Amino acid sequence: MRILGIDPGLQVTGFGVIDTDGSQQHYVASGTISTRHMGTDELPARLKVLFDGICELVARYQPDSAAVEIVFVNVNPQSTLRLGQARGACIAALVSRELTVAEYTALQMKQAVAGHGGAAKAQVQAMVQRLLQLPGPPGSDAADALGLAITHAQVGRTLARLGQATTLAGRVTGQYRGGRTR
Amino acid sequence: MRILGIDPGLQVTGFGVIDTDGSQQHYVASGTISTRHMGTDELPARLKVLFDGICELVARYQPDSAAVEIVFVNVNPQSTLRLGQARGACIAALVSRELTVAEYTALQMKQAVAGHGGAAKAQVQAMVQRLLQLPGPPGSDAADALGLAITHAQVGRTLARLGQATTLAGRVTGQYRGGRTR
Repeated sequence: MRILGIDPGLQVTGFGVIDTDGSQQHYVASGTISTRHMGTDELPARLKVLFDGICELVARYQPDSAAVEIVFVNVNPQSTLRLGQARGACIAALVSRELTVAEYTALQMKQAVAGHGGAAKAQVQAMVQRLLQLPGPPGSDAADALGLAITHAQVGRTLARLGQATTLAGRVTGQYRGGRTR
Repeated sequence: MRILGIDPGLQVTGFGVIDTDGSQQHYVASGTISTRHMGTDELPARLKVLFDGICELVARYQPDSAAVEIVFVNVNPQSTLRLGQARGACIAALVSRELTVAEYTALQMKQAVAGHGGAAKAQVQAMVQRLLQLPGPPGSDAADALGLAITHAQVGRTLARLGQATTLAGRVTGQYRGGRTR
């Protein structure tokens, strides 16, 4: 299964693509979509860059599902609004391509990748590097996006195991459908 | 010129379509896209309904440009975040169809439609009914969306006049391009 992780932001959106065979994760691609040097502050133009960028990623890497970071209310309400709009455009791009979108908090991602929710950015980068056997640590935004994809792969594996266990017990109560999982 | 006005909201998004010949506005269609009775609270599923709904409107009515309400920070930060995400998905749908998107505040819309920024919802509904010669007042969300389209038509007309005036004076300093106009 191929997973596309997205760490949304109006200025910089991180992305990461991994393949998972159930037990191991393999790096496919990662990077950022930036609207920083557009020469315009127009929100619609920026959202178009995000939307088109994600559609291009989906076309190029053909992921089976997507994992997007759940954003929280910022100290600055204007930042909250900007981030919300960026996230809305990112999710719109994913669902417009018929992808199921799972949502995880940064805390869940850090727990899955680094073992504890308080992990610093550098720790997440180092653990993503180790888990995916990369030659160097990915950039912070790309690392978060890869971390979200890894989290989704791990959750899928756990849910599959739970499903298997319940099947053995005679009834299926859990099934991994790639939907929201929190 | 045909204008699509959008009043974004996660539960209810209002829309209104008008034709303008420069001096007069004519009603084409209006209504709402609702995610209220979906039987799910999943944000991606709701954003997909908004995205698909707006794409359907664009395909059906073939507008030349769009006007979207600028949303503000709510007293409740979670509401701000939800509204931001809904607005991001709506704008993503419009720009994905290559439409230019103008943005107006509710204050600007009320000034354009009712003559003063403090107009109550019922006043906006009544003025939209009168301006578009409708048999009855449109619903509140649809009225706001029609009001945004009317605002955009009026701004376009004013900018066109200014452009004409400056041309007569020997140099063009203003041109109506349907971009952000605040």
